[in-house]
Amino acid sequence: MDLPKHSRAAEAASHPQRVTITNVSPELNGGRYPIKRVVGDEIKVSADIFPDGHEVLSALVLYRTDKQTLWNEVPMEFVENDRWNGSFRVSSVGEHVYTFQAWIDAFRTWRRDMAKRVEAGQQASVDLLVGADLIAQAADRANGADAAELRKRAESVRGSAERDPGFAAEQALDERLALQMDRYPDKRLASMYEKNLRVTVDREKARFSSWYEMFPRSASPKPGRHGTFRDSIARLPYIAEMGFDVVYLPPVHPIGCVNRKGKNNSTVAAPDDVGSPWAIGSRDGGHKSILRELGTVEDFRALVDATRQKGMEIALDIAFQCAPDHPYVREHPEWFRIRPDGTVQYAENPPKKYEDIVPIYFDTQDWRALWNELKDVILFWIGHGVRIFRVDNPHTKPFSFWEWLIAEVKRDHPDVLFLAEAFTRPKVMYELAKRGFSQSYTYFTWRNTKWDLQEYFTELTQTEVNEFFRPNLWPNTPDILNEYLQLGGRPAFMARAALAATLGASWGIYGPAFELCENRPIHPGSEEYLDSEKYQLRSWDLARPDSLKDWIARINQARRENPCLQTDAGLKFHSVDNDNFIAYSKSTEDLSSLVVVVVNLNPYQKHSGWLTLPLETLGLPEHKPYQMHDLLNDARYIWQGPRNYIELDPAVAPAHVFRVRRHVRSEHDFDYFE
Amino acid sequence: MDLPKHSRAAEAASHPQRVTITNVSPELNGGRYPIKRVVGDEIKVSADIFPDGHEVLSALVLYRTDKQTLWNEVPMEFVENDRWNGSFRVSSVGEHVYTFQAWIDAFRTWRRDMAKRVEAGQQASVDLLVGADLIAQAADRANGADAAELRKRAESVRGSAERDPGFAAEQALDERLALQMDRYPDKRLASMYEKNLRVTVDREKARFSSWYEMFPRSASPKPGRHGTFRDSIARLPYIAEMGFDVVYLPPVHPIGCVNRKGKNNSTVAAPDDVGSPWAIGSRDGGHKSILRELGTVEDFRALVDATRQKGMEIALDIAFQCAPDHPYVREHPEWFRIRPDGTVQYAENPPKKYEDIVPIYFDTQDWRALWNELKDVILFWIGHGVRIFRVDNPHTKPFSFWEWLIAEVKRDHPDVLFLAEAFTRPKVMYELAKRGFSQSYTYFTWRNTKWDLQEYFTELTQTEVNEFFRPNLWPNTPDILNEYLQLGGRPAFMARAALAATLGASWGIYGPAFELCENRPIHPGSEEYLDSEKYQLRSWDLARPDSLKDWIARINQARRENPCLQTDAGLKFHSVDNDNFIAYSKSTEDLSSLVVVVVNLNPYQKHSGWLTLPLETLGLPEHKPYQMHDLLNDARYIWQGPRNYIELDPAVAPAHVFRVRRHVRSEHDFDYFE
Repeated sequence: MDLPKHSRAAEAASHPQRVTITNVSPELNGGRYPIKRVVGDEIKVSADIFPDGHEVLSALVLYRTDKQTLWNEVPMEFVENDRWNGSFRVSSVGEHVYTFQAWIDAFRTWRRDMAKRVEAGQQASVDLLVGADLIAQAADRANGADAAELRKRAESVRGSAERDPGFAAEQALDERLALQMDRYPDKRLASMYEKNLRVTVDREKARFSSWYEMFPRSASPKPGRHGTFRDSIARLPYIAEMGFDVVYLPPVHPIGCVNRKGKNNSTVAAPDDVGSPWAIGSRDGGHKSILRELGTVEDFRALVDATRQKGMEIALDIAFQCAPDHPYVREHPEWFRIRPDGTVQYAENPPKKYEDIVPIYFDTQDWRALWNELKDVILFWIGHGVRIFRVDNPHTKPFSFWEWLIAEVKRDHPDVLFLAEAFTRPKVMYELAKRGFSQSYTYFTWRNTKWDLQEYFTELTQTEVNEFFRPNLWPNTPDILNEYLQLGGRPAFMARAALAATLGASWGIYGPAFELCENRPIHPGSEEYLDSEKYQLRSWDLARPDSLKDWIARINQARRENPCLQTDAGLKFHSVDNDNFIAYSKSTEDLSSLVVVVVNLNPYQKHSGWLTLPLETLGLPEHKPYQMHDLLNDARYIWQGPRNYIELDPAVAPAHVFRVRRHVRSEHDFDYFE
Repeated sequence: MDLPKHSRAAEAASHPQRVTITNVSPELNGGRYPIKRVVGDEIKVSADIFPDGHEVLSALVLYRTDKQTLWNEVPMEFVENDRWNGSFRVSSVGEHVYTFQAWIDAFRTWRRDMAKRVEAGQQASVDLLVGADLIAQAADRANGADAAELRKRAESVRGSAERDPGFAAEQALDERLALQMDRYPDKRLASMYEKNLRVTVDREKARFSSWYEMFPRSASPKPGRHGTFRDSIARLPYIAEMGFDVVYLPPVHPIGCVNRKGKNNSTVAAPDDVGSPWAIGSRDGGHKSILRELGTVEDFRALVDATRQKGMEIALDIAFQCAPDHPYVREHPEWFRIRPDGTVQYAENPPKKYEDIVPIYFDTQDWRALWNELKDVILFWIGHGVRIFRVDNPHTKPFSFWEWLIAEVKRDHPDVLFLAEAFTRPKVMYELAKRGFSQSYTYFTWRNTKWDLQEYFTELTQTEVNEFFRPNLWPNTPDILNEYLQLGGRPAFMARAALAATLGASWGIYGPAFELCENRPIHPGSEEYLDSEKYQLRSWDLARPDSLKDWIARINQARRENPCLQTDAGLKFHSVDNDNFIAYSKSTEDLSSLVVVVVNLNPYQKHSGWLTLPLETLGLPEHKPYQMHDLLNDARYIWQGPRNYIELDPAVAPAHVFRVRRHVRSEHDFDYFE
């Protein structure tokens, strides 16, 4: 009479579960991927939870780190339509898991029904005996004073059920008893959600960071002399004053000599040409070596330490590719694709050829050794104090490799962060984020119109994407000088900085090209810089009066002082009756931090218009004034009601970043703002 | 140098998969539940499929029945944005599974790149040798003539690569060769989707059915005499003439004597009261027995056979609950809840009591024996020719029980169908459908306004719900006489029949109460019938001139003749400038079958208005007339353009069911319609 083995329902039902737990949120791809959070975050979860029938449920969220074995429990709350909410806080970095438990609460069900019987005046002595039994069973599960008290209560109800049912009902329906009963539920038939869902908990910088990319080789105070790590240390105060907290360095390794690129990407290098830092490896070493001209390992460590002392940290570029003279090519030819003529396959995107680079052949049969060696590269730099890696072109290496690598590294170093530089198709970008990258470059660089920005940032921040993809917004990179910057000049740079730094909790610039408004392309229609630092040394006049360093410092200060600018959630676009403007607010969930940003996207002309704010949504007073404090120039405006006038002249400043100060009290003759 | 065991990515990567297959559709709750289809259906599937990098992919849908071990393969097609589509057809009832396979197509990638090199005029002899190697490898995988041909081609390309690269390229890029190569892909590194997704394939009646519920005990031609199965056989021609194909009988078992209900649900039964058929079981037997007054098992089989001969079939009511005198209560007291005073717990919804019914206690420790016995009940009636079960109140029994029961039964009898009568919360109704019910009752009975109907049927037919929930629409049931019918009278019955039969591919009525427009409630504000057949015999005058039997016959004929009315998909609501009307179209995917329905929801007043149809969406001509053929009264109207006049007088007929006949050719002086 055994139940057949064939049915998977029968197997699951070896102890049949009465409660269904389903449509869980957040849950990425059926639990295949973790969601992402940072330390201290409250994680809000919800699920459809329902039994057959109409009995009363209790439900818990269970959570723990992946190293703990015992669950922490948090009661969930019923919302409506069989939906339940719960939340828990994560207090350490590393992987966490969460799941759900629910059961039919026999006592609460009995209590609800008993109250209805009493109200209907029914004679219900037998039902009171049922209740007494439930209390006695809880007494068996309880301990100490509770056990004795519950046992006594059960006897009292049982003893008076026939004789004095009114008294018995009062005893059994007592509110304090119900709360006491809640502590000793009968969970023998409890349902567990079938999956453990994962959360990757990072340190705060994963969510909120301000990046500055610089070429150490251009940091020399003497034009023409190759810059060093020591020169870079001297540059740190300048970067810190602008308010950045991550200093990102292109690859620091020996640069290949074979097929080295010359200035402006020419295929023939002059003898003194320095080559591209991304053409990694030469006789002097590979991914674990340092380019002699930059300094020694000790110099590198000094730079790492000096950066930390300035409240910043170094991010290192990881480009898993090789120059033809990288030692790997000689030592591990099996990690490269050998062509029928015996040559090593160089990188290409036919008909384009990149003969200074040979890609690693990840389909190699020897992939285990390859993967371990590449992991060793990361561990090597972690050993030298690096905790952030900016990964070059991750989309040309297997997803499974990254998933393995990042999990491996973070198991022992959960504070390490990885930024994916994948400028590729949207689904590939999202997949890399799901596989483990802490942050990701975005299409922001090419989103310059109001519609484009609104569409894209609604997708990034207001959909499931927000659970796994942390955008890092760059107005420029050494590879991308967008047309908007080329044509719009200084006002365009100002606008793009304001947008990047307020639309996203993480942003970055490639400097000093950015703050000095470098906008000359190699030729019209190209996004490549003229005289790009990728192929030659540059010397920058940091003291130029038209530098944007003060503008940038103001923006980063606003970011530090306003928590709403430190997360990607809480973004809302608002309507302006002039489409040259884009307007949006950022707010924390409790609305205690609220910033309104208005940008004139037209870098050539002054514009004015009327901005409409949803007062109630933003917690703004309807019939009292509130103060708009422009954090970029300290101007303060008194606004009232939903519609207010704005005017921005790009020649002066193309953006407002308003901190909104609510009206808190008014006296007869002055207004006082929080 | 082994990869650590901790990482699940590492385990999955014992053979690293380069291609990601994700966001699969359809897929219910991460593959936890099957989708539903009927025999002959084409199942359209899609997925995001992408590799790292930019290589060319090939992808397959794999499918089989759950009894086969080998997969059938169908190539998928790239759509855009990494989305791929595919489809397959299911040709037998029973469980099927499907999944996906994809791989990087080395030859197609090489061919694409080679063509670009040729176009750019590059010298590419080495690349031609790479191509020759790929062809030679395919030759090793091929057999027969193909193997020889490919080997020869490889040699030809290899031999001429240096000497005559133009000729070699022509040989290698040959279109016929590419198609030949497609037949011998290198799938060693192919990626499989991680889950096998399930499809429950039913016979066509699961999708398209017309139900008629009748009480055999009221089928006697002689008022006051208890009707029998033999009387019901005599009633079959009448039902068949109305075009129904399922005859649904309330429970046919012995009816309990203990606490039997009297007429109009009175708690005291007179000696001759027949009781409720849902109070199952007495000294005469239980769920495997037949009420003596209805006839014998042989009579029942005769009814089953006669129904089949009329092109219809019997659906039997399954109510897993007992009268207090059901044999189970005596033989298996462990299957019931015994109260502290030794009595068996009756059904209740406090303060309401249903003392003629005792519910089965599914939390019993003896649940395995209980489940098997209840399965035996189903198998017993299957043994007597029943293939459709209408399940009473499934939402008061465990979901896992139904999932097990239905899977068990359908494993050996995949043609058996189950209709869930769960009038309860939406998520519970949907969950029951996901657990295996073939069809479900709906809220249609209470959706009487335009907005309500549009909202509800958009949810049922245009969302994921359509994958698993097959609505069966009932304007009335023995439990529900909706206020709209009570107040609206005959026009309301006509309107509700037209709506149920065209909004849903499955519908049903409880007759003869419905066609005779029985609309007297037990008291105002109640949905219970006065003199309900649930508690007493009724005698019906089927020949009444105001009977709706012809109206219903017309509607069912329209359903049989128009394939678009036989599925729930293809429903679109259209705009009328008078909100008393609801208007919608049903169409098959190829638009070859198209019906437009317009109903005046106001049962009291004539209304007119202008209907707007989206001509292009419906495949209607913009500048030529088309014919609207009202299938309910054979009137034909010539319409032109998107906006046309409608007028419906409920006293005559509250609905149009137009078959749309497109204009196919026009001669000088006459129009000819398909």
